[in-house]
Amino acid sequence: MITLTSDFGLKDPYVAEMKGAILTINPHAILVDITHQIEKFNVRAAAFALISAAPYFPDGTVHLAVVDPGVGTDRRAIVIQTKKGFFVGPDNGVLILAAQSQGVEHVYQLASSKFMMPKVSGTFHGRDIFAPAAAFLAKGVQPAEFGPEVKDLVTPEFAKVKFSGGSLTGRVLDVDGFGNIITNITEKDAAFEEGKTLNVELASAQLKIPFRKAYAEAKHEEPILLIGSHGFLEIALNQASAAEKFRLKTGDKIKVVVA
Amino acid sequence: MITLTSDFGLKDPYVAEMKGAILTINPHAILVDITHQIEKFNVRAAAFALISAAPYFPDGTVHLAVVDPGVGTDRRAIVIQTKKGFFVGPDNGVLILAAQSQGVEHVYQLASSKFMMPKVSGTFHGRDIFAPAAAFLAKGVQPAEFGPEVKDLVTPEFAKVKFSGGSLTGRVLDVDGFGNIITNITEKDAAFEEGKTLNVELASAQLKIPFRKAYAEAKHEEPILLIGSHGFLEIALNQASAAEKFRLKTGDKIKVVVA
Amino acid sequence: MITLTSDFGLKDPYVAEMKGAILTINPHAILVDITHQIEKFNVRAAAFALISAAPYFPDGTVHLAVVDPGVGTDRRAIVIQTKKGFFVGPDNGVLILAAQSQGVEHVYQLASSKFMMPKVSGTFHGRDIFAPAAAFLAKGVQPAEFGPEVKDLVTPEFAKVKFSGGSLTGRVLDVDGFGNIITNITEKDAAFEEGKTLNVELASAQLKIPFRKAYAEAKHEEPILLIGSHGFLEIALNQASAAEKFRLKTGDKIKVVVA
Repeated sequence: MITLTSDFGLKDPYVAEMKGAILTINPHAILVDITHQIEKFNVRAAAFALISAAPYFPDGTVHLAVVDPGVGTDRRAIVIQTKKGFFVGPDNGVLILAAQSQGVEHVYQLASSKFMMPKVSGTFHGRDIFAPAAAFLAKGVQPAEFGPEVKDLVTPEFAKVKFSGGSLTGRVLDVDGFGNIITNITEKDAAFEEGKTLNVELASAQLKIPFRKAYAEAKHEEPILLIGSHGFLEIALNQASAAEKFRLKTGDKIKVVVA
Repeated sequence: MITLTSDFGLKDPYVAEMKGAILTINPHAILVDITHQIEKFNVRAAAFALISAAPYFPDGTVHLAVVDPGVGTDRRAIVIQTKKGFFVGPDNGVLILAAQSQGVEHVYQLASSKFMMPKVSGTFHGRDIFAPAAAFLAKGVQPAEFGPEVKDLVTPEFAKVKFSGGSLTGRVLDVDGFGNIITNITEKDAAFEEGKTLNVELASAQLKIPFRKAYAEAKHEEPILLIGSHGFLEIALNQASAAEKFRLKTGDKIKVVVA
Repeated sequence: MITLTSDFGLKDPYVAEMKGAILTINPHAILVDITHQIEKFNVRAAAFALISAAPYFPDGTVHLAVVDPGVGTDRRAIVIQTKKGFFVGPDNGVLILAAQSQGVEHVYQLASSKFMMPKVSGTFHGRDIFAPAAAFLAKGVQPAEFGPEVKDLVTPEFAKVKFSGGSLTGRVLDVDGFGNIITNITEKDAAFEEGKTLNVELASAQLKIPFRKAYAEAKHEEPILLIGSHGFLEIALNQASAAEKFRLKTGDKIKVVVA
């Protein structure tokens, strides 16, 4: 099984070219689109779509994600082997959230031309490098066969959480349709005691917010901290938009004082 | 085989999450999208898309439709067993037109947690209840295993046709690209004699319209009644828009005097 | 394996109706969408999407393309057998570029009602004639069984290249996202010597342009001629839009003096 995520849209034949490349190598692959309507070059949005959908796919699934503003430069092409499956794409952070949530085991560079299209274009590695790699992985080729091991995975700002001086500093990953602020701080980082009140520092305000289990536990329009269905720490307002009230948008810094 | 209809759009990963949930339970399922671009919460439009496409799928197909404004309330989740296949979704009318056209045999509530995701969210029953049910049905689980039988299926206004005092009162289900007015009155209800002229009462006009076999049998811009390719009674104008001329839109009442 | 290209969009259930028709006849068919967002009735754009994607699919693939402004008239429905696979659609030029690039062997009319839906509508041959034909071809039915051989394939202006008086006259097939002008003159027609300077006549200008291997071989904003990744002759400007500079759009004439 192979999932596909990209910023190619559905109007042009690019997604079909990737699928054709996969099915030529591996006619038995089952292909499932996550989305191809990621905003052009928005690596963070693609990383978030991938970590949202990946948990619902079976073990062994190969996740292919191509949002690749650096195509044609020397950014690496990689495969990440996790405890649950495989992630294929550029080494620009698009794979990192979903891969880390599954537990990264090894990362290899896609370097062997044996697993690429015979002619690799300078502009469409999705079709010429990544799609063939996904097809061969789904066919049973071992990740280590693709190239040398990579030890210094690129980690963009949106995937970094810093622990220092008793506080956690992360970023806003996404604002959902209800205005809930989804941070990049994971359940593991944010193992707080139920009911504990935490100091939260935003650019716009310093707040004291209780850590709860569910939205409904907050009083009307009172802010709460909780672990959302994606496994990330959220700031929410019961029946109102937290993002609007605190004037936060994706990429903004957020600091939680833990101790 | 499982078809999917929803108002989730193709930008967010929700449809992929449903597909992942299905394929985790039933990796051999063949998935076909009907559409995910139903107007948000428009149950009538989804019901119409489903009855348009369902006749072209093989016997035994499971049709999953999730346009679910009542998610989180006590509206029921159901499976309808028909003479041709299965329909899975909320009990809000989204399944009813297509299911009735195939002949309803039994309706059961989706109540057994054995056939749901281990953790059911309050907001996304598409992924947590309906997708697993469709996957298990396609795997051979019997509808009666999901929960108690339902005898009082919810029937929205758009699915009701009243017979009284020698007349049929229905609703406008859809206006197609040519301006033809598609009613919810079925071929069976409207078993008129070819060539017969009928009195039709609309909010805007009282008309005498002949019942014909084909659009081309009408004179230029003369209204006709006919059974469209969907099996519903239509009011059409040869080479002009009936909806525009008679100022009718979806949901409007239409009365046909039969006797 | 069957690919699908159309101008039906993804909102209405038409694409699903075609897929249901295919899977009813041939439940093992693997379906891949090329695109359904071709501009309404734009045969040229569909022909270009098809020739872009078709090379990436395995031998034996059936390509179904339905952009069909002439549905209901006496335009023919055809199957083209090439050296690599099959093309099914209306005889209006939508198949011709991709089929010719694979080498046309035979063309047959879809005339036998044995391979159509029992009831053929006047408006939706995609579902009633073309989809069933694709399903039967993928199942192994021989092209000659569908109907009489066709010798006079319709060739629209956008597929015509004229050789006369030592010059090649073609048309602009597409302008890509970089403003590169993609003509309908193929690699075979344009077998020029690397580095040769050619006289090019456009409506807006008479130019002398060198024939090169790659975009990067041109000086900044100097025009070059090259064979693009689609196998067609292109006029490009290094790091600028040739289409804008020379005020060219799809369909415009272009003449290259060869001798």
